[in-house]
Amino acid sequence: MKKSKKHKIGMAPGSLVYMGDITTEKPTLSLIDYCEDHLHEKMIEIADLADIKPDEKNKIWLNLSGIQDPNFISEIGKQFNLHPLVLEDILNTDQRPKVESYGDYLYIVLRNFEFKRSGNLSSRQVSLILGKHFVLTFQEQVTECFEPVCERLRNGRIHIRQAGTDYLAYALIDVIVDQYFSIIEDIGIHCETLEEKLLRKPSPTLLQKIQVLKRESMELRRGVWPTREVINNLIRNDEGFFEASTVLYLRDIYDHAVHVIESLEAVRDLLAGMLDIYLSTISNQLNKEVRALTVVTMMFMPATLISGIFGMNFDKMPLLKDTFGFWIAIGIMALIAIVMGLHFFRMQWLSRRGI
Amino acid sequence: MKKSKKHKIGMAPGSLVYMGDITTEKPTLSLIDYCEDHLHEKMIEIADLADIKPDEKNKIWLNLSGIQDPNFISEIGKQFNLHPLVLEDILNTDQRPKVESYGDYLYIVLRNFEFKRSGNLSSRQVSLILGKHFVLTFQEQVTECFEPVCERLRNGRIHIRQAGTDYLAYALIDVIVDQYFSIIEDIGIHCETLEEKLLRKPSPTLLQKIQVLKRESMELRRGVWPTREVINNLIRNDEGFFEASTVLYLRDIYDHAVHVIESLEAVRDLLAGMLDIYLSTISNQLNKEVRALTVVTMMFMPATLISGIFGMNFDKMPLLKDTFGFWIAIGIMALIAIVMGLHFFRMQWLSRRGI
Amino acid sequence: MKKSKKHKIGMAPGSLVYMGDITTEKPTLSLIDYCEDHLHEKMIEIADLADIKPDEKNKIWLNLSGIQDPNFISEIGKQFNLHPLVLEDILNTDQRPKVESYGDYLYIVLRNFEFKRSGNLSSRQVSLILGKHFVLTFQEQVTECFEPVCERLRNGRIHIRQAGTDYLAYALIDVIVDQYFSIIEDIGIHCETLEEKLLRKPSPTLLQKIQVLKRESMELRRGVWPTREVINNLIRNDEGFFEASTVLYLRDIYDHAVHVIESLEAVRDLLAGMLDIYLSTISNQLNKEVRALTVVTMMFMPATLISGIFGMNFDKMPLLKDTFGFWIAIGIMALIAIVMGLHFFRMQWLSRRGI
Amino acid sequence: MKKSKKHKIGMAPGSLVYMGDITTEKPTLSLIDYCEDHLHEKMIEIADLADIKPDEKNKIWLNLSGIQDPNFISEIGKQFNLHPLVLEDILNTDQRPKVESYGDYLYIVLRNFEFKRSGNLSSRQVSLILGKHFVLTFQEQVTECFEPVCERLRNGRIHIRQAGTDYLAYALIDVIVDQYFSIIEDIGIHCETLEEKLLRKPSPTLLQKIQVLKRESMELRRGVWPTREVINNLIRNDEGFFEASTVLYLRDIYDHAVHVIESLEAVRDLLAGMLDIYLSTISNQLNKEVRALTVVTMMFMPATLISGIFGMNFDKMPLLKDTFGFWIAIGIMALIAIVMGLHFFRMQWLSRRGI
Amino acid sequence: MKKSKKHKIGMAPGSLVYMGDITTEKPTLSLIDYCEDHLHEKMIEIADLADIKPDEKNKIWLNLSGIQDPNFISEIGKQFNLHPLVLEDILNTDQRPKVESYGDYLYIVLRNFEFKRSGNLSSRQVSLILGKHFVLTFQEQVTECFEPVCERLRNGRIHIRQAGTDYLAYALIDVIVDQYFSIIEDIGIHCETLEEKLLRKPSPTLLQKIQVLKRESMELRRGVWPTREVINNLIRNDEGFFEASTVLYLRDIYDHAVHVIESLEAVRDLLAGMLDIYLSTISNQLNKEVRALTVVTMMFMPATLISGIFGMNFDKMPLLKDTFGFWIAIGIMALIAIVMGLHFFRMQWLSRRGI
Ligand SMILES: [Mg+2]
Ligand SMILES: [Mg+2]
Ligand SMILES: [Mg+2]
Ligand SMILES: [Mg+2]
Ligand SMILES: [Mg+2]
Ligand SMILES: [Mg+2]
Ligand SMILES: [Mg+2]
Ligand SMILES: [Mg+2]
Ligand SMILES: [Mg+2]
Ligand SMILES: [Mg+2]
Ligand SMILES: [Mg+2]
Ligand SMILES: [Mg+2]
Ligand SMILES: [Mg+2]
Ligand SMILES: [Mg+2]
Ligand SMILES: [Mg+2]
Ligand SMILES: [Mg+2]
Ligand SMILES: [Mg+2]
Ligand SMILES: [Mg+2]
Ligand SMILES: [Mg+2]
Ligand SMILES: [Mg+2]
Ligand SMILES: [Mg+2]
Ligand SMILES: [Mg+2]
Ligand SMILES: [Mg+2]
Ligand SMILES: [Mg+2]
Ligand SMILES: [Mg+2]
Ligand SMILES: [Mg+2]
Ligand SMILES: [Mg+2]
Ligand SMILES: [Mg+2]
Ligand SMILES: [Mg+2]
Repeated sequence: MKKSKKHKIGMAPGSLVYMGDITTEKPTLSLIDYCEDHLHEKMIEIADLADIKPDEKNKIWLNLSGIQDPNFISEIGKQFNLHPLVLEDILNTDQRPKVESYGDYLYIVLRNFEFKRSGNLSSRQVSLILGKHFVLTFQEQVTECFEPVCERLRNGRIHIRQAGTDYLAYALIDVIVDQYFSIIEDIGIHCETLEEKLLRKPSPTLLQKIQVLKRESMELRRGVWPTREVINNLIRNDEGFFEASTVLYLRDIYDHAVHVIESLEAVRDLLAGMLDIYLSTISNQLNKEVRALTVVTMMFMPATLISGIFGMNFDKMPLLKDTFGFWIAIGIMALIAIVMGLHFFRMQWLSRRGI
Repeated sequence: MKKSKKHKIGMAPGSLVYMGDITTEKPTLSLIDYCEDHLHEKMIEIADLADIKPDEKNKIWLNLSGIQDPNFISEIGKQFNLHPLVLEDILNTDQRPKVESYGDYLYIVLRNFEFKRSGNLSSRQVSLILGKHFVLTFQEQVTECFEPVCERLRNGRIHIRQAGTDYLAYALIDVIVDQYFSIIEDIGIHCETLEEKLLRKPSPTLLQKIQVLKRESMELRRGVWPTREVINNLIRNDEGFFEASTVLYLRDIYDHAVHVIESLEAVRDLLAGMLDIYLSTISNQLNKEVRALTVVTMMFMPATLISGIFGMNFDKMPLLKDTFGFWIAIGIMALIAIVMGLHFFRMQWLSRRGI
Repeated sequence: MKKSKKHKIGMAPGSLVYMGDITTEKPTLSLIDYCEDHLHEKMIEIADLADIKPDEKNKIWLNLSGIQDPNFISEIGKQFNLHPLVLEDILNTDQRPKVESYGDYLYIVLRNFEFKRSGNLSSRQVSLILGKHFVLTFQEQVTECFEPVCERLRNGRIHIRQAGTDYLAYALIDVIVDQYFSIIEDIGIHCETLEEKLLRKPSPTLLQKIQVLKRESMELRRGVWPTREVINNLIRNDEGFFEASTVLYLRDIYDHAVHVIESLEAVRDLLAGMLDIYLSTISNQLNKEVRALTVVTMMFMPATLISGIFGMNFDKMPLLKDTFGFWIAIGIMALIAIVMGLHFFRMQWLSRRGI
Repeated sequence: MKKSKKHKIGMAPGSLVYMGDITTEKPTLSLIDYCEDHLHEKMIEIADLADIKPDEKNKIWLNLSGIQDPNFISEIGKQFNLHPLVLEDILNTDQRPKVESYGDYLYIVLRNFEFKRSGNLSSRQVSLILGKHFVLTFQEQVTECFEPVCERLRNGRIHIRQAGTDYLAYALIDVIVDQYFSIIEDIGIHCETLEEKLLRKPSPTLLQKIQVLKRESMELRRGVWPTREVINNLIRNDEGFFEASTVLYLRDIYDHAVHVIESLEAVRDLLAGMLDIYLSTISNQLNKEVRALTVVTMMFMPATLISGIFGMNFDKMPLLKDTFGFWIAIGIMALIAIVMGLHFFRMQWLSRRGI
Repeated sequence: MKKSKKHKIGMAPGSLVYMGDITTEKPTLSLIDYCEDHLHEKMIEIADLADIKPDEKNKIWLNLSGIQDPNFISEIGKQFNLHPLVLEDILNTDQRPKVESYGDYLYIVLRNFEFKRSGNLSSRQVSLILGKHFVLTFQEQVTECFEPVCERLRNGRIHIRQAGTDYLAYALIDVIVDQYFSIIEDIGIHCETLEEKLLRKPSPTLLQKIQVLKRESMELRRGVWPTREVINNLIRNDEGFFEASTVLYLRDIYDHAVHVIESLEAVRDLLAGMLDIYLSTISNQLNKEVRALTVVTMMFMPATLISGIFGMNFDKMPLLKDTFGFWIAIGIMALIAIVMGLHFFRMQWLSRRGI
């Protein structure tokens, strides 16, 4: 359940109140310090924060998983000299992606989406702070998301260890954007499944699922569009946080973000088309229902009239005394039915094709 | 009831005519003068205005609640040397948010929205004037809206007392924008309630409520979009009314405004989806009505024809003399009904699912 | 009736052909010359034009009402040294609002709208030329439109008499824009009347009225949008036709124009919503019609079948010999009808609510 | 029939292949050389091209009507030193309006539209090359289009003869844009005719005509929008091909182009509204059909049931023996019919108004 | 089948993984080196790459068809000193068109579309690298696409051999954009075929085909829009990769791209119109079905009632004893039917025209 923002109205800026769900029992703080030659990786406590001294030879990556405890945030803030507004934003977990410069460091907000097979989209906020010799990351819960980057650091890949913390920041942003592809793929598959079902058997339940997917694709769009803007800002690199060589890599992520956006537009077109098909199928179905009604009425009414005619009580009526009178009447009824049947067949009213 | 603007056509600019509703019996004028060391708070009369001398050590916040009396506005205007157009705008209470520089001071118009549980959105204009050592605020009626800021001033919070009047102006704008979140939340909840009802039992009354909500979300949008522009202007800070440190805080409100706008777009998508669901539910319902009609017709017509056939007055007819003739006829009717029933069951025409 | 532009194809630019309707018997030319100390107002003839000598002490406002006579235009053109294209444009009365600089003077085109209670929107072109010490205005017909400005001049209001002709031009533009508010108000009222009728009793005639209103709001929009641009251009004041103090006043009109545009968008949303309501009301109505048909069919068919069954001519039939046989049959019919009635009541098919 | 562009794939740029229809038997080449004092006009052959020497005293206007012969184009190209891409574009007759500078001359492409009374829109490409002392025009077929300009040249109108070739180019562009007004007028009239028919008697044929008109207004729009851009480019006059005084005239055409675009938008709104009316008329019609069906069913079913009841073969039945029994039964039938008729009348089901 | 991008999440940038389909058995590498005087063309192996020395006198065009083998890419990358991100992008075959500068060379991505008669659109990525004296092209499969350019090189066309590699790059981009025309033409023809079928006999299958075509036109649009941007970037020519004379040619392709985009918009309008026609045809059809039902009901109900009336068992009934009673009854039935028939004929309910 989302927390109401009402009780934050009027609070001083920088008031640290956690707005998200509590999803881990205890926040975990992991520290990697590395340079070309060495890499140390350990879990630390708040008390150990004071010992951290980032410099050229000891580039620091501090990752906090689970941010429900404002104390952690506040202590890290003191150690790295972060602005109260940054700390507040780290705790407000429903922000849209953005990048803000605070002179000594960049504050970057991104969103980590998850799309469950059930058709459920959720997102978690990831905050990233890029300083001269350090990178701080804050995640709402423990995820494996950054593991591939750790692995590349550990494997001693020349480039990632040699390069500055700007390249590390790039690598972290890259894994987040890479995941968008995977989500778009999943949504695409979900869409196609729905479309198949729609063509086989449209139902109001399906319509609701289409609406949910449409809403989720909008939500994803609201997450990805500003991400594109964030990366664009980083590429402009007005304050020189990034090396020229890293900017080439950022340009690569930018490409990916644009690609994701276009795929999303395609999904939206697909869903709009599905809605059209649903509505026209319903209309079409109605035509067939009315036609069935018409056919029934047409087939029975003449016969019913004939039976009524021969049920009249006139003294003098033709055929009544005739031995085969009854069968002649039945025959006329049958004849009319057959002629009509042939007509409907010719009109293709009896076939299931056509509108 | 909104006043007609017709009688203002052709008036000289700066003509002071109050356009809003009269909502308080008597305007109240409250004065806070403060600096780092002291804070004086009192209710004053028009006559006391002449004593106000804002300077570095006596920063002034003058708040007028209830603006129906042009005299008040005109007197304050003289004391603070305000342009006639500013005074006119304070009284024209249906303006869109804007910021205008008059050299010595900034004139800012914002709107204070209120969303009642009944689904009713209303808004009141708030005018804010930011000078070198003073802030003036004008509200249409007495509200608790600025109370949290007073409280922070009274509590002697170091920052708000030390900082200039620009920071006070920021704090006041902040509480107004914070309230937008609360309204969006309420609208969102209202939406979800309507959607639930819609899925359970669509009705034309519901449709009208959706239309009303759509119109209100448009109205809110018309209030929030220019607010975003206002804050953007303040951040650009072309005339240096704001300290660099305060601009960081304005950037934070800007973020909030963008967030509100995006939430509003989401609400709009939600409402558009609800309209689609409503229309397709009606179409679907029609299909079921016609199907019911068809089923009834199909079930009764053959039996009616058979009864008609055996009601004919031919001399020679089969079965009529037969002891069980009647029951055979009834049996045939029943048989046809059962066969049809099975067919409809197989076609799922009797189930309530499917389209 | 609009005149065809066909016969102007290929004419030399500056060919003076009047394109509007002839609405006054005789054009009237009124002249006001004024400065801080004096004001002279008189009706003049073409021959008197040569005597006009605008200077600092004799600011001139020449107003021509009724422009069907190209001679008037051409004479005024000679006297004030106007470009042939300006004269041509004054006579082409279906132009969109614009401002053009010709070095010595600005040529401004605006539109004066009129919305009749019958729901009829019409517009007339107003041309305004602002020179160093003169203002010329050209109206298609005699209107009271500029009367409030005359009044303010006559009353010797200090500001309007002291200020330059730029302020007079502002005052004239202001009354035109002020009238837009009045029109928007009238359209809004017309809209609400239509909506009320729509909810009480939708009809195709109403639909046509909605379409007409939509078209008119588009037309108004096409008039107001460029007006906004015109005022924006005047505010930019690239060629210094306006004093800095007057620019503040232009900014005020700009605000009004934006306000009008937003109100128009709101009207458009309202009309779009009304169309949705109309269409869904029709659909809903159809559902009820079909349901009525179904109810009738369902109520009568079983009884008809029963009467048919007892009308069969079998020798041996139950109940026929029974004294109360007839009443038993009638009773069965009534029973079925009552059971069905209860069922329909429970399903709310007999109530007028629900879809 | 449009020619396929397939066989041009991979050809070298500047390959001269005529893509349009051959509409004249023989291309005609007309030459006007003129200055303030003289004007010579003659039809020439390719061989005469070499004698043309444009200079200050002999301004040249060469017009080619009928461009199917690449030789003509290629010879003119050599004489005036035109770029191969220009020659290619002259022959590719389905280009969108554009202006391109080639240093010594401007290459301008415009489109000449024609709207037939039958509702058929077609367009022809006009290429115009503006050099220092010459203007070249290329038309797909012989038209009277430029005749008014010739006439003004011949009549020795001071301005057009004195002014440079830039003014001649303006005059030619002007007649083309002037024709757009005439086309918009015709389309508007066609629209109104369709709308009238639609309100009297909607039919699928009418719908198709609306669709065609919509498509044509789109096509016109695709022609006019870039024309506006072309003129805007000419006004910017980056390379000084136009005198300052001519730019004022270009600004006039720009105005016209914007006017045409707005009229087109109005036509589009009109057509969209007509589609809405068509669809809602169909829906409405359906309601009336169903209502007619319901009324018939309701009027006959009770009477039919009563006749069935008195047709039952019970021994003991009321009224059967009664002398007036038959008339009583008929009376009951009539009574029910009358009551129903009154009810339907009160419900306005029998009137043709309402939905 | 598209490959999932999931297994690339977290990989280091520049990891060479082929994402497309394997469509050729063996990649083929062809080399053309040329200058004004000579041209050598041969198929080479990876091992031969080291011998390539592009210079002024030996301009190089290396084309790789079939890129499934990362070794090829990686070797070419080493020889021409390409950035790992370029190599990665060459293998990621679903990129949108783009141009990126890497200082020494430009990396251009384009898409080669193919539209099959069956209505199937597919696209292949083409990568093009433009260096000082070399052009590299990478195609997903062996195509004839660049053959016309080879041919022009072989034929010793002066211009293409003299000009630098920038002109060669232009020529290659040109053939790709030229193909778009051909595809648009094919889609247009496909559209018209569908529309014709739609007017003759609308069916849900047709609707699905329209949806598919709409989706494909969107896909094409997503390919062509960025192509336009790419060419626009090349024209801006910020880093001087192109000679001024070649830029004129690029401007020509830009024109083509814009033309393609506009044609696509026209196709989209066409498809939207077809959807409207489909939906209104269904509605119209429904009206006719209901009318048929109404006519049948109306024609038979009165006759049925009359037969029922004369089937009642009253002792005293008129006509029953009459010799011609039966025929009188039949006559009344026929009369009513004829009157109704005439009425329906007058109402045009029996004709197939009208709605
Ligand atoms: Mg967006
Ligand atoms: Mg967008
Ligand atoms: Mg945005
Ligand atoms: Mg987009
Ligand atoms: Mg986009
Ligand atoms: Mg885009
Ligand atoms: Mg907006
Ligand atoms: Mg937006
Ligand atoms: Mg936005
Ligand atoms: Mg947005
Ligand atoms: Mg517009
Ligand atoms: Mg707009
Ligand atoms: Mg706006
Ligand atoms: Mg707007
Ligand atoms: Mg707008
Ligand atoms: Mg466009
Ligand atoms: Mg546009
Ligand atoms: Mg415009
Ligand atoms: Mg426009
Ligand atoms: Mg537009
Ligand atoms: Mg737009
Ligand atoms: Mg786009
Ligand atoms: Mg794009
Ligand atoms: Mg364009
Ligand atoms: Mg476009
Ligand atoms: Mg465009
Ligand atoms: Mg476009
Ligand atoms: Mg657009
Ligand atoms: Mg757009």
